[in-house]
Amino acid sequence: MKTIEVGILGGTGMVGQHFIRFLQGHPWFKLTWLGASDRSAGKKLKDATSWRLDGEMPADAAEIVVSDSLPSSKTGSAPKLVFSAMDASVATEIERAFAQAGHVVVSNSRNHRMDEDVPLMVTEINADHLRILKRQQTERGWKGLIVTNPNCSTITLTMALAPMVKFGIQRLIVATMQAVSGAGYPGVASMDILGNVVPYIGSEEEKMQQETQKILGLFKDDAIVPLAAKVSAHCNRVAVVDGHLVTASVEFAEKPAVKDLQFAVENFRSVPQERGLPSAPVRPLIYMPQQDRPQPRRDVTRENGMAVFVGRLRECPVLDVKFLACGHNTIRGAAGAAVLNAELMMTEGLLD
Amino acid sequence: MKTIEVGILGGTGMVGQHFIRFLQGHPWFKLTWLGASDRSAGKKLKDATSWRLDGEMPADAAEIVVSDSLPSSKTGSAPKLVFSAMDASVATEIERAFAQAGHVVVSNSRNHRMDEDVPLMVTEINADHLRILKRQQTERGWKGLIVTNPNCSTITLTMALAPMVKFGIQRLIVATMQAVSGAGYPGVASMDILGNVVPYIGSEEEKMQQETQKILGLFKDDAIVPLAAKVSAHCNRVAVVDGHLVTASVEFAEKPAVKDLQFAVENFRSVPQERGLPSAPVRPLIYMPQQDRPQPRRDVTRENGMAVFVGRLRECPVLDVKFLACGHNTIRGAAGAAVLNAELMMTEGLLD
Amino acid sequence: MKTIEVGILGGTGMVGQHFIRFLQGHPWFKLTWLGASDRSAGKKLKDATSWRLDGEMPADAAEIVVSDSLPSSKTGSAPKLVFSAMDASVATEIERAFAQAGHVVVSNSRNHRMDEDVPLMVTEINADHLRILKRQQTERGWKGLIVTNPNCSTITLTMALAPMVKFGIQRLIVATMQAVSGAGYPGVASMDILGNVVPYIGSEEEKMQQETQKILGLFKDDAIVPLAAKVSAHCNRVAVVDGHLVTASVEFAEKPAVKDLQFAVENFRSVPQERGLPSAPVRPLIYMPQQDRPQPRRDVTRENGMAVFVGRLRECPVLDVKFLACGHNTIRGAAGAAVLNAELMMTEGLLD
Amino acid sequence: MKTIEVGILGGTGMVGQHFIRFLQGHPWFKLTWLGASDRSAGKKLKDATSWRLDGEMPADAAEIVVSDSLPSSKTGSAPKLVFSAMDASVATEIERAFAQAGHVVVSNSRNHRMDEDVPLMVTEINADHLRILKRQQTERGWKGLIVTNPNCSTITLTMALAPMVKFGIQRLIVATMQAVSGAGYPGVASMDILGNVVPYIGSEEEKMQQETQKILGLFKDDAIVPLAAKVSAHCNRVAVVDGHLVTASVEFAEKPAVKDLQFAVENFRSVPQERGLPSAPVRPLIYMPQQDRPQPRRDVTRENGMAVFVGRLRECPVLDVKFLACGHNTIRGAAGAAVLNAELMMTEGLLD
Repeated sequence: MKTIEVGILGGTGMVGQHFIRFLQGHPWFKLTWLGASDRSAGKKLKDATSWRLDGEMPADAAEIVVSDSLPSSKTGSAPKLVFSAMDASVATEIERAFAQAGHVVVSNSRNHRMDEDVPLMVTEINADHLRILKRQQTERGWKGLIVTNPNCSTITLTMALAPMVKFGIQRLIVATMQAVSGAGYPGVASMDILGNVVPYIGSEEEKMQQETQKILGLFKDDAIVPLAAKVSAHCNRVAVVDGHLVTASVEFAEKPAVKDLQFAVENFRSVPQERGLPSAPVRPLIYMPQQDRPQPRRDVTRENGMAVFVGRLRECPVLDVKFLACGHNTIRGAAGAAVLNAELMMTEGLLD
Repeated sequence: MKTIEVGILGGTGMVGQHFIRFLQGHPWFKLTWLGASDRSAGKKLKDATSWRLDGEMPADAAEIVVSDSLPSSKTGSAPKLVFSAMDASVATEIERAFAQAGHVVVSNSRNHRMDEDVPLMVTEINADHLRILKRQQTERGWKGLIVTNPNCSTITLTMALAPMVKFGIQRLIVATMQAVSGAGYPGVASMDILGNVVPYIGSEEEKMQQETQKILGLFKDDAIVPLAAKVSAHCNRVAVVDGHLVTASVEFAEKPAVKDLQFAVENFRSVPQERGLPSAPVRPLIYMPQQDRPQPRRDVTRENGMAVFVGRLRECPVLDVKFLACGHNTIRGAAGAAVLNAELMMTEGLLD
Repeated sequence: MKTIEVGILGGTGMVGQHFIRFLQGHPWFKLTWLGASDRSAGKKLKDATSWRLDGEMPADAAEIVVSDSLPSSKTGSAPKLVFSAMDASVATEIERAFAQAGHVVVSNSRNHRMDEDVPLMVTEINADHLRILKRQQTERGWKGLIVTNPNCSTITLTMALAPMVKFGIQRLIVATMQAVSGAGYPGVASMDILGNVVPYIGSEEEKMQQETQKILGLFKDDAIVPLAAKVSAHCNRVAVVDGHLVTASVEFAEKPAVKDLQFAVENFRSVPQERGLPSAPVRPLIYMPQQDRPQPRRDVTRENGMAVFVGRLRECPVLDVKFLACGHNTIRGAAGAAVLNAELMMTEGLLD
Repeated sequence: MKTIEVGILGGTGMVGQHFIRFLQGHPWFKLTWLGASDRSAGKKLKDATSWRLDGEMPADAAEIVVSDSLPSSKTGSAPKLVFSAMDASVATEIERAFAQAGHVVVSNSRNHRMDEDVPLMVTEINADHLRILKRQQTERGWKGLIVTNPNCSTITLTMALAPMVKFGIQRLIVATMQAVSGAGYPGVASMDILGNVVPYIGSEEEKMQQETQKILGLFKDDAIVPLAAKVSAHCNRVAVVDGHLVTASVEFAEKPAVKDLQFAVENFRSVPQERGLPSAPVRPLIYMPQQDRPQPRRDVTRENGMAVFVGRLRECPVLDVKFLACGHNTIRGAAGAAVLNAELMMTEGLLD
């Protein structure tokens, strides 16, 4: 595959920094462009912001001169492929302007996720939802397009559910314990979370409930038909740096054997694995047999942060089955998810 | 009410220390006796163990000479009322020996909780379960008796459920985020929990599932008839010092209005309040209207640690209603729970 | 002592909330006035801000209508005594305006601390520094006056040093481990401090170095003469909610015996204790003989948060002696310190 | 360099697991032998212990059958090179037995560190101390030998001091903030450290004071002559998983310019770098110019955990200069340190 240049909208923020780090050494995508607010435009990245992640700012990214958030400006034009790491408060109009101008916007922002003609992609789950893009371009009159990935907690959950869909998911109650990195920087105040749990994350429960249905839905008659399962989420913030943990109880059309679900989890492979996409984990789901795993601090950085870890599959006295899922919220749940989507689109010829 | 002398079995351990602290200045119960293992017997408390709780060992308790765990020994006889804070590995036989010898054993250990003729008491919920004691004494031929209180997470949950029982609880799925103090000392290794969640606590899920049914059960035909509701628990350990948080989704025989449940919670009062028991919280349940409360570090020490805090009552897309409950696991969930049970028994004449 | 009305400048912020809580039930000072920014003025406190501390906003304070930060405005005049909990960015001019208008400003802000004619008070240490106020009023032409208390880490340190001054402190190297509450709300980002140490706190080392000298200085010839000891501070932020811990190595004019220093610490009493000021701890310094104490989470809330805990007094291989000091940063180190200063001033007739 | 087989004494414990992980894929050393207590001997590693580190037990190590802690037993003979990760309570005799039997024991235990004829090695600092081994073998009549590495906090400190020795270090006051992983597993109880600091670590201050002098000493007249600098340490445990942070104030024979010290730190290279030892970091010391760095969670895993990070070099108002040092306590401070020592010995022909 040839190497193409890519950009990041919202390149100075914390999510942007996760994209920068994840793209380091990427075999197909070379980061050459960063868009941000007026305040940063014209400065080198190293002068525009502080590095919030572990270690130090990657040396090559540090020298990129930040552009305005415009498809083209006096600092030059953005590449065709731009990842959007923008804050939701500004993403809507800017992402549309880029799509209209012919760019492929692969967005981590929530703004367009529930639009009918925008795919909400988890690469291993719904590669076929890309087919909606034709309608998106036609109806909106865009030369470019917008593709989104879900909320971090939803990705972790839906990845674990993916091999279970065929058993007929009917109802689902989940409780999350989510890492502070999911709230960006400065994000959660230490006064709120040290030795504490905050049992509320704004709009998170609604997002998990709706996004899960769309992601697991079918593409049919030129539309994405949401899965008709009921979902209830209890979302909590805990004193963890990286890694969301989800407990789930699931009811199926017909109760499957626990061992059959475990087999399905352990053997789950999908398009990214088949095509050998550069960021695809060899095993997208890793089942851990230990009774007290997965655990966020001990597991989520394995497999380059791109696998989801499943454990404790067992019978549920109320619904049918219960289990744990755990994933890296800023890699598998954000930057890595978007990059994997872009890799899929590359193999589909959507970036030509 | 006259003041009586009381003792603590397992008085040198961490749970024992919680009893010691909770009994400081108690108007009815004067701590005069501590039972522990051979290793400690004959030493003053201050020489037998280190103080693991905040601050320093209470000066008067520090001078008590620890006895063997026998109803009477060369260091004298135990008082009629003994609280048991013993580790479950040794509690069964010792508690029975005390009951047989005529002592009233108010136990925090799990050993006898599920025995048919042993009341599993949450003072506000099932004061009538004390009526089983007649059978206990008759059938076992004991002069004394054993009363137990539940597991810390179960107390928090059942307190919140108490005013909801009348709406006909059918099914219940809960996820807990439990404090490390629940595991005693040294308990949870810091390497396991710093920046982490441990999604497993040995036997805890089974305990919550069974104990909840028994506590909320009816006393009928000389027996405790468990509530016929199905319960499913997901138990997790989080990096919190004190305070268990529970998320719950509940299904009722007929779906009640959220505002009716909230009214029932806010107005819940029971026997301990009516009788003005010394350790009874004025309001056993406190409903917090803030969208992000209750929180363990910020709420559980209020009301002397004896109230349970409820919040976020709202509709559940899968079952009927969902909410949060939060309580102090070592006070309301252990030492304080047992002392409140003993206070009730005092007013019932069971300690005469 | 009669009860007087008091106000709080910066009453909606986090430090202001600490003042509100500390003044609950105060026998001399009745809180009736809160000053804040234009944004809050005219609203009841409960509508102007969220409660950031444990538990819930005190019910009586919640109903106070917030005023502009002016000595008198359409919402009425401020009481004579106002505590200042204002952010340093705005405190200078507002505090001066109040002093000029005849108010006694007892400030926790850093702005005027190092002014030559402003006392930097730790009530137990330098009550005589109040004598500088005559000069302050004369030279500035003020009807009122300004009194300050030091930085939270400096109070903890100087309290422990107070009984050692007579041995002739020459040089001092300290390292601090400071709680996140010292940075206010939202203050330290959880991404910065979870499982981490931040070895830098802006201007804190300079403040500790200078303020310590002034506090421990003599009042002589109408001036405060700083102690001629050299001080070097290493300031660090750790994942603790409340309580600053300081390690200190000290060199004296002549090396005292460790046991003589310990005796001096254990027997330290001063003006607040002699006069029985309402907020004075019975023992301002508590020496802990355990080898691993004091510890912030276990000790600082004792004695109503107003004592400083000292431990591990031992020989230093480089300077003469080393030890630990630990105190509650938002009580003894801020709100409580200011209130205790005001109580002293009340007994001095400075509030008449 | 040819590949040799190596073993680990104490291979089932937590330090042993750090060795196992660090030796994964090592180009010179192939792990084939694990020694442990009777309880484990005869079992495969995977059956003898749980994996306490992140992720899962390395698959090849999992299959090694654990031997008794004897140079040769029915399960075969130990390789010539054995790393010792034994608990100090048992290390003395076992390590000697191995040395006597001709093994090269590279030990992380403290037992022999201060023996006159045992080198206490930090590979970058005192490679010449290996010269004492001739005397060790002669005087003890051993065919093998024992080499030790220091305590984790001492390594971090002495690495930072190494390039400063030439300026004539006279006196040194340090305060440490040490990670819980330094105490092994289960080690520090979560009840002790959550939201807290424990200002005491048994014997740690004495170890830092003595070991520092020996490590930085000269080899002269067939003996290791300790550096005649006075060292005072304040050791504290903080709520950090991995990474010790040290604040240091240093006095020199003649005060050097801060910029000269910084230059010396930035340009420090030594024998491991010159010889290209496999585990040697390219830059053993990394100076961080940011005012709030290094930080344990953000920095210590960089450079494979083998570099030490230095920051905030500045003037000290009491001694001459102060600074921060930070390193990975279980890699650079333990397993990695020992392996680097063994690599040096390999190039010296000591493993032939």
